Amino acid sequence: MGRWEPNARGRLEQAALELYIERGFEQTTVAEIAKRAGLTERTFFRHFADKREVLFSNSLQELLVTSVAGATDSVAPIDAVVAAFEGAGALLQERREYSLQRQAVIAANPGLQERELIKLASIASALADTLRRRGLTDPAASLTAEAGIAVFKIAFERWISETNQRDFPRLIRESLDELKAVTAGK
Amino acid sequence: MGRWEPNARGRLEQAALELYIERGFEQTTVAEIAKRAGLTERTFFRHFADKREVLFSNSLQELLVTSVAGATDSVAPIDAVVAAFEGAGALLQERREYSLQRQAVIAANPGLQERELIKLASIASALADTLRRRGLTDPAASLTAEAGIAVFKIAFERWISETNQRDFPRLIRESLDELKAVTAGK
Repeated sequence: MGRWEPNARGRLEQAALELYIERGFEQTTVAEIAKRAGLTERTFFRHFADKREVLFSNSLQELLVTSVAGATDSVAPIDAVVAAFEGAGALLQERREYSLQRQAVIAANPGLQERELIKLASIASALADTLRRRGLTDPAASLTAEAGIAVFKIAFERWISETNQRDFPRLIRESLDELKAVTAGK
Repeated sequence: MGRWEPNARGRLEQAALELYIERGFEQTTVAEIAKRAGLTERTFFRHFADKREVLFSNSLQELLVTSVAGATDSVAPIDAVVAAFEGAGALLQERREYSLQRQAVIAANPGLQERELIKLASIASALADTLRRRGLTDPAASLTAEAGIAVFKIAFERWISETNQRDFPRLIRESLDELKAVTAGK
């Protein structure tokens, strides 16, 4: 097998998720994931530190930070942050089945739920840093980032749980409107 | 030593914190904590499941839930939640030195930081449940709870980090005002 493997990362993600659902996260080994993907363990470890990290890529955080950093100055910080989440939501929308399966695996494992919370905290911190670099001071920068995370988290829960498939970016925008209403005491 | 130990819980908390600061969290044993507190290991385990739990009592969550459940109906949900945090903040204010030391221990240990995130997520979930029992529907209930957590988290960071000792309940109220301003796009 050559060193160049077309879409190795995506194939490993897909294979891992299938096995986590079939056998459970704990019962699945890296060797099995690599075999299912038609790749070697060596290739697996070129892409992921361990079998947990397959579920937690950094691409969401990078996407959000790039989007917020590139927003025009005339946009209010909260709108820049929520627009970034809407963009991410549009991409997740295209992978709804994958997102649903991933969520089922995480819901079945407390250790993975902890990892998810840490990931969200890390995203909040990265977004606050990005807003500070754009000149926003604290506590506004931190609060804007936390508000964005809250909006995304609740919209994600709705998107995942509702049987009628709603448009995810739209749910994110609705969630922001609802946050505005509740913080205003309405 | 008799079974009845006056303020055993508080003495164990204080002894544990002292040892975590002196020797580090990982290097401290339950036996050492009990000895420092002048109590037995058996007494320790009557109060706490392990040495990590000494830092994470459920009393904050209980206090917040009781406060929100008891708020009068005329109060807006966000104000009931933030008033609950202000009440908790007033109690923490009286134990500022303990809070500062506890935070220093947590900041030095990634495992404890994870536990802190889980605790905040658990509080958000309990507050949302309480609001639902009061008749608030979703997503308003979840968003109000998440907004309260965001307000508390940022106010806590300011309270802990600022060298000039500010009034914690006041910082919580200011943090809510700031959240209102940032979500309104100001």
